[in-house]
Amino acid sequence: MNLHLRDDLARLTALEARTRIDEGSLTSERLVAACLERIALREPEVEAWTHLDAEGALAQARALDAGPSQGLLHGIPFGVKDILDTFDQPSSYGSPIYRDHRPAWDSSTVALSRAQGGIALGKTVTTEFANRHAGKTRNPHNPAHTPGGSSSGSAAAVADFHVPLAIGTQTGGSVIRPAAYCGAYGYKPSLHVFGESGVRTNTEQFDTVGIMARSVADLALFKAAAAQMPYVPVAPDAVSRPRLGLCRSPHWDKAAPETRDAIEASRRALEAAGAQVVDFELPDFFDGLDRAHRVVCGFESVRNYADELARFPALVSDDFRRERVDVGNASSLADFREALRLGLRARRWIDAALAEAGIDALLTPSAAGEAPAGLASTGQATFNYIWTHMYMPAVTLPRFTGPNGLPVGIQLVGRRHEDDRHLTLAAWADRVLAAN
Amino acid sequence: MNLHLRDDLARLTALEARTRIDEGSLTSERLVAACLERIALREPEVEAWTHLDAEGALAQARALDAGPSQGLLHGIPFGVKDILDTFDQPSSYGSPIYRDHRPAWDSSTVALSRAQGGIALGKTVTTEFANRHAGKTRNPHNPAHTPGGSSSGSAAAVADFHVPLAIGTQTGGSVIRPAAYCGAYGYKPSLHVFGESGVRTNTEQFDTVGIMARSVADLALFKAAAAQMPYVPVAPDAVSRPRLGLCRSPHWDKAAPETRDAIEASRRALEAAGAQVVDFELPDFFDGLDRAHRVVCGFESVRNYADELARFPALVSDDFRRERVDVGNASSLADFREALRLGLRARRWIDAALAEAGIDALLTPSAAGEAPAGLASTGQATFNYIWTHMYMPAVTLPRFTGPNGLPVGIQLVGRRHEDDRHLTLAAWADRVLAAN
Repeated sequence: MNLHLRDDLARLTALEARTRIDEGSLTSERLVAACLERIALREPEVEAWTHLDAEGALAQARALDAGPSQGLLHGIPFGVKDILDTFDQPSSYGSPIYRDHRPAWDSSTVALSRAQGGIALGKTVTTEFANRHAGKTRNPHNPAHTPGGSSSGSAAAVADFHVPLAIGTQTGGSVIRPAAYCGAYGYKPSLHVFGESGVRTNTEQFDTVGIMARSVADLALFKAAAAQMPYVPVAPDAVSRPRLGLCRSPHWDKAAPETRDAIEASRRALEAAGAQVVDFELPDFFDGLDRAHRVVCGFESVRNYADELARFPALVSDDFRRERVDVGNASSLADFREALRLGLRARRWIDAALAEAGIDALLTPSAAGEAPAGLASTGQATFNYIWTHMYMPAVTLPRFTGPNGLPVGIQLVGRRHEDDRHLTLAAWADRVLAAN
Repeated sequence: MNLHLRDDLARLTALEARTRIDEGSLTSERLVAACLERIALREPEVEAWTHLDAEGALAQARALDAGPSQGLLHGIPFGVKDILDTFDQPSSYGSPIYRDHRPAWDSSTVALSRAQGGIALGKTVTTEFANRHAGKTRNPHNPAHTPGGSSSGSAAAVADFHVPLAIGTQTGGSVIRPAAYCGAYGYKPSLHVFGESGVRTNTEQFDTVGIMARSVADLALFKAAAAQMPYVPVAPDAVSRPRLGLCRSPHWDKAAPETRDAIEASRRALEAAGAQVVDFELPDFFDGLDRAHRVVCGFESVRNYADELARFPALVSDDFRRERVDVGNASSLADFREALRLGLRARRWIDAALAEAGIDALLTPSAAGEAPAGLASTGQATFNYIWTHMYMPAVTLPRFTGPNGLPVGIQLVGRRHEDDRHLTLAAWADRVLAAN
């Protein structure tokens, strides 16, 4: 088999690969080998991985090839953000404190994906403790640009065809933003749909496991496995005249021209395909969520990292101190309480407003624009933190390109706890945008 | 020093001990030695501990005695429920799977307590994964009776004068119930006031770190340290004519005579001291919270323990399977969503109802009655799960005794996120009841 064909195998989506494996025209071993070959080719430039279990993955693939189907992900390799624990691979959380750390367990979504026949190919780069301090990963479309963060490696690995699926986490914008910057599909579920055990706690109020793939259909497949839920394949044909709210958010002034263009082009295309798109404005009090989000994250993370701050102060980055520790230490219980109450009020408001207006989903930017140049910053969660704060499911569709040739995504935010319905809507929108 | 005097030292509250240490009339080393002596005397019967770090604690005490005050808990020993990680002591989570497990870090509340000069004397018994499968601990008032759970060892150790303070966790009734059964003061804060990092995830929706002590004043002291908050001493003198709601809950038929008597006696005493006590009824839809709580716990914990269930199925108890795995596997996403929505609705209702009625706190049972005979069951969370589900702060006051001579508590439940105010109210109520 020549390199070109192997490279094509690495480009298969999980569902395409699974179909071929089911039919007997592909083995898991060949698929894993193709992914490893692609990684060997690209990793020197992209640096998406902190650990690769090549031998273990090939051995698991051979064992799976020799037996009956184990489930939804039979023989499919996936990447695991290094903020999630794996019992057989190091877990370093993007911190030198844990360079050699080996957890005793698998995180919930890893264990469940493995139980469905998935193969944890390795650990992908996370920023330090899934916060702001960047790791080594570069944007696969241009190594001088950030891949975004905190799920930097998962986004780059999926978009660059290292692996069809990867797990990430989002506390602000850590799944949607890097997926948009790298050109992957990203899905942040409603809070508490995926199990959080074995994820290093950052901000328990908002920490949400999410996933990345190269199609919306794959997101639905992976979600079913990682969340131990019945598989509900996306059904875009069943979508008819959805009602969407175009939400510019309080930060529209931060949206770059390519983002404004992507949103407007999406509006036109979706309307032409039958969607009703209405403007959806957030009330003024949502302006306070920016600060509320930072207060809650600072308040909780300064406490959650008390041990590292006490025992390894020299190994905690200045970025972490500035973004989290200083904010947390400056926030009183009254500040925290006020922030929590604002979030509660905002969630009440938006749940009611969407129901009242009969809106199925919101159309909003995935990020301010293309991935910025430079690797020191992973960009901002400007267009993400509100939806994390609202506990609402969010999907980014990588259907646009910016002036520098880098991907630009649009984000669809669904009603809380209606994740299956939202994935189907996103699949419909993605098909519409692909045809335009 | 004779045994009697050492035993008296072990009976000091944390604030009493701290005052003596500050004055120079007591050293931390003598206090720790007194606690260890008390444990040596009582542990064969009570079995509250899974691990004691006697040598380490004495060494830390000597080091603290030789230096300046490190803060709120300077020189004070505390116990740590074995569901919380400690970097220097084993953490077994009540499961044979983790018999020899050594975590890499301290849980948030442990690290913060240590940073304030507290000494982690050892790990206290938890039920398996902080669920129902009982550990070895016995009720210190009668070894044939359960200490309650899941924070069995922390409640028994504090009530039996092994240690003045201990950390627990509550997902249903795991702090308030064992504290009530053993005769300790217990405090479950509003959700997310204490950091949850380094706590084995059970049900992320409800897992709440809590604390136990032998006075309400000590709860306020320990809270400030463990949550890294300014210390707000309780100020019972500042309480004037509080307005209380007597809440019999949907489960009043389960309340034993000693519990009904304790509630009625409390009502009379508090009214005589100036409180207005009004009946506070929960609407009928709260009846559904019992099932909703079990669905959410089952749904989340079956996912969070996916790794243990896959790799060590023979080492997971039948109790865990019955209470959590079977319920979780039988619960659909729609069931989970419905349960979450009921909780949301209930929290909205109760926040508004308390505000509207101007009620400062609810008076309600801590448990159905005295600790039941037998060690196989740790009792039921009948009178606790609602308040965990409501995210409201709860305190149990061990001011009554049942027909078998075992402690009976009453529970005061405060407004969400008004924890300091609630501790002061609880201190006032405790003083009133002590005088009766």
